[in-house]
Amino acid sequence: MKKIAAFILSLCMVLTLLSGCGSSGSSGGAVSENGEWSGAAPKYVFLFIGDGMSYPQVQVAADYLGALADEDYERAQPSKNSIGPILDGPEYLNFMNFDVAGSAVNYDSNSFAPDSASSATAIATGHKTYSSSLSVDEMGTTKYETIAEKIHAQTEMKVGIVTSVNLNHATPGAFYAHQASRSQYYEIGKELVKSGFDYFAGGEFLKVTDLHELAQKAGYKVVRTQAEAEALSSKDGKVIVIGEKLADSSSLSYEIDRAEGEWALADYVKKGIEVLDNKNGFFMMCEGGKIDWACHANDAVTAMHDVLALTDAVQVAVDFAAKHPQETLILVTGDHETGGMSIGFAGTEYDTYLTLLQNQKLSFEQFDALYATKYSRNTPFETALADIEECFGLTVDSKGKMMKLNGYEQEVLKTAFEKTVGTLKGMSVQESNILYGTYEPITVAVTHILNNKAGLSWSSFSHTGLPVAVFADGVGAELFGGYYDNTEIFYKLADLLNVE
Amino acid sequence: MKKIAAFILSLCMVLTLLSGCGSSGSSGGAVSENGEWSGAAPKYVFLFIGDGMSYPQVQVAADYLGALADEDYERAQPSKNSIGPILDGPEYLNFMNFDVAGSAVNYDSNSFAPDSASSATAIATGHKTYSSSLSVDEMGTTKYETIAEKIHAQTEMKVGIVTSVNLNHATPGAFYAHQASRSQYYEIGKELVKSGFDYFAGGEFLKVTDLHELAQKAGYKVVRTQAEAEALSSKDGKVIVIGEKLADSSSLSYEIDRAEGEWALADYVKKGIEVLDNKNGFFMMCEGGKIDWACHANDAVTAMHDVLALTDAVQVAVDFAAKHPQETLILVTGDHETGGMSIGFAGTEYDTYLTLLQNQKLSFEQFDALYATKYSRNTPFETALADIEECFGLTVDSKGKMMKLNGYEQEVLKTAFEKTVGTLKGMSVQESNILYGTYEPITVAVTHILNNKAGLSWSSFSHTGLPVAVFADGVGAELFGGYYDNTEIFYKLADLLNVE
Repeated sequence: MKKIAAFILSLCMVLTLLSGCGSSGSSGGAVSENGEWSGAAPKYVFLFIGDGMSYPQVQVAADYLGALADEDYERAQPSKNSIGPILDGPEYLNFMNFDVAGSAVNYDSNSFAPDSASSATAIATGHKTYSSSLSVDEMGTTKYETIAEKIHAQTEMKVGIVTSVNLNHATPGAFYAHQASRSQYYEIGKELVKSGFDYFAGGEFLKVTDLHELAQKAGYKVVRTQAEAEALSSKDGKVIVIGEKLADSSSLSYEIDRAEGEWALADYVKKGIEVLDNKNGFFMMCEGGKIDWACHANDAVTAMHDVLALTDAVQVAVDFAAKHPQETLILVTGDHETGGMSIGFAGTEYDTYLTLLQNQKLSFEQFDALYATKYSRNTPFETALADIEECFGLTVDSKGKMMKLNGYEQEVLKTAFEKTVGTLKGMSVQESNILYGTYEPITVAVTHILNNKAGLSWSSFSHTGLPVAVFADGVGAELFGGYYDNTEIFYKLADLLNVE
Repeated sequence: MKKIAAFILSLCMVLTLLSGCGSSGSSGGAVSENGEWSGAAPKYVFLFIGDGMSYPQVQVAADYLGALADEDYERAQPSKNSIGPILDGPEYLNFMNFDVAGSAVNYDSNSFAPDSASSATAIATGHKTYSSSLSVDEMGTTKYETIAEKIHAQTEMKVGIVTSVNLNHATPGAFYAHQASRSQYYEIGKELVKSGFDYFAGGEFLKVTDLHELAQKAGYKVVRTQAEAEALSSKDGKVIVIGEKLADSSSLSYEIDRAEGEWALADYVKKGIEVLDNKNGFFMMCEGGKIDWACHANDAVTAMHDVLALTDAVQVAVDFAAKHPQETLILVTGDHETGGMSIGFAGTEYDTYLTLLQNQKLSFEQFDALYATKYSRNTPFETALADIEECFGLTVDSKGKMMKLNGYEQEVLKTAFEKTVGTLKGMSVQESNILYGTYEPITVAVTHILNNKAGLSWSSFSHTGLPVAVFADGVGAELFGGYYDNTEIFYKLADLLNVE
């Protein structure tokens, strides 16, 4: 009798464990009273970090998809209480439907608006540090072992690092390097080589010098063409994949500028799974790094396309998880918000006209490269206006309807154009910093005007102190609910994966 | 033997139910596979709504408290990688520590940036509607029964509605009234009287006319002095408490302007508990309504003080819950973001100087009333500068250090002053709308400059499309995790409370 009772008790306990956490509906696992994980460790862990991606960047991408899909959207604006079309609302990105969505607070050791180095350090190591430090303490002396290093050292899991920016940029760097300054690119690159991690993929190293050779000496296969990358498999051992086509600062292309057939971020993740897949599982960090760059430049369209590229990369993990449902954890978060983006603008009040954003054909960076940086004192303003119409759809033509530049906007553009070509007199440094930051004035003015017409706006060219969302799905996802410090992400992962 | 096994099985199931949801640590209850509630209903439900309170408003209040408490804060700025002071970070508001923190998406039937009527309708009824409609469909014909009405009709719980704005304003109104337009104040007031709810407290009715008399005829005790309010108890039956001292638009005072001894929002909640307390429990909705008004005016200091007043009101519920731990649910959310507030500003880049905000002595509204609206063409600009120094600490004095107005800021103030007194020529309507909205130009310019110096900024005078946080603690809290539509708040509450 005792045996049977004991058996039933055990059965109940197992059921309790399997039932998991309430609303999360996540498979497997259990969380103890003190919030610790008492279930099995996930075998496959994906950590997606949208650099500069907080609530506004995520929500506006979903709103944009909703607006494009909604035939009534344009007629439903302006918002007023009238019987007519009814808005369908946003189309949630895949990760917005994850069972768990917490919030992470991301101040660092000297600011409420952290940088990518300090915030990635918090996520990777559980420690705050100064802005621009990478996985070291504020003195720059104590190295903090990262979650990726712990996994590599203490488990049989393989480790992969993917980014749309340079392999030795701040966010990926925080997972394998230890430097007081994120600008020590060569040193960071050497630490990458030393890490022994299994898969690196993304843009070229900054200060590359002999880093490829050092990597090869350390046993890495370094591939620089898409054809070579396509041929890679788990048999190739440790690999470093550099994008064949490089864009600004040797990063991968912005999604909006990506050519037909050129690998997207999702392709690097897909290849990563092929290279890393093994019986002991893997940990893969994937950064959508250029969301941040686009937001620094206050270019909402380019940022949104990169959020959607990250969403596509997440889909690869979601599809993988469907085949490994009791073994996979997917996290999608950001490191901080960039730009102070609002889904709202003083000039459009309660209305948004997101479909206008379709008119933008290229990134701010390509407009800079192909047009703005070529303007000189001899360039007529009309030339710039023609380029702007071609690339952004903004027009002085009275038939331009919603895209027509009004007198005020034309004046704003003209001032910015004069600032770009160097003929403007009398603007104070303060005003110039507020209007253009360190960006090409004419380009910033154009993206501001297009974004404003669509009902979006910006308040900074730097990072802001908004918390970020943490979306979680799969084994252990329930640990990531609540409003907590970003260092907790490390502790939750370490707890789940039994590393110390 | 079978009996014992069955007993153990039952015991296990009870334990499973009691163990609740993983990380939430919430007491009691359980959530089924399909996300439905299978535990006991909470007996006491508090729903706090910060009008205009989204992530920026919550986080900046926590950051501000952290900055004030941190001796190193000012020295740690500007942010750079230097060995020196280390920031302590924010001091979380009580509800930021709740076990559960989800996100609610709040578009309405004609905009991604909803108004308070449509968003409160979503929360109160589970239905989207047009901006400015109250708990009716888009045609204005079908009435949606609200969660408060259902509780009142279908359970023995008492119902209370508290707000810092008018009793017949949009947010409270959505819980008891059904009108195509939120401006039908008298009709809304009549619906309040008809509701039969047990406790109303807040500012005076708009278009009050005979509403007090109608309420008395319907059996309400209407009290208009603090002394009378203090004397109220559960023996007084249905009561309506109107603030003794009324501020702008007959609302309660902004927290920053509240006089010593004058009731705070927390006092109205405390009294509500005394009036509503009974063996069958109660539902209380409490709105911090003037967070929104302050954010519309882009006055961060006034908004923060009202967020802190809401936090104090939440503390009353937290203390109550401590005495009723297995029976209470507390929700704290917002309806939408207002103002496009950023914890960051182009001019201050990565730095914040939140302690500068201490210099502000009164709300934008009091500055309008006492100073700005009294300025005329004959008022010297120097008079305004002196008032601004007295009320906001901003100075042209070269010894002003961080509070010194630079040349650019003085110019911005001067232009705004001229706009206020009517001597400004040549500003386009578009520019004026973007700079000042419909507010007093000199006052907006002052709060903008002070906020900007502190590292905060604004992008709109209207609502924006940012999702809001939903903080939950207690019985059923785990239902409120995840990223979901704001209509879900209604369905989760209805599920928990077994109303249809």
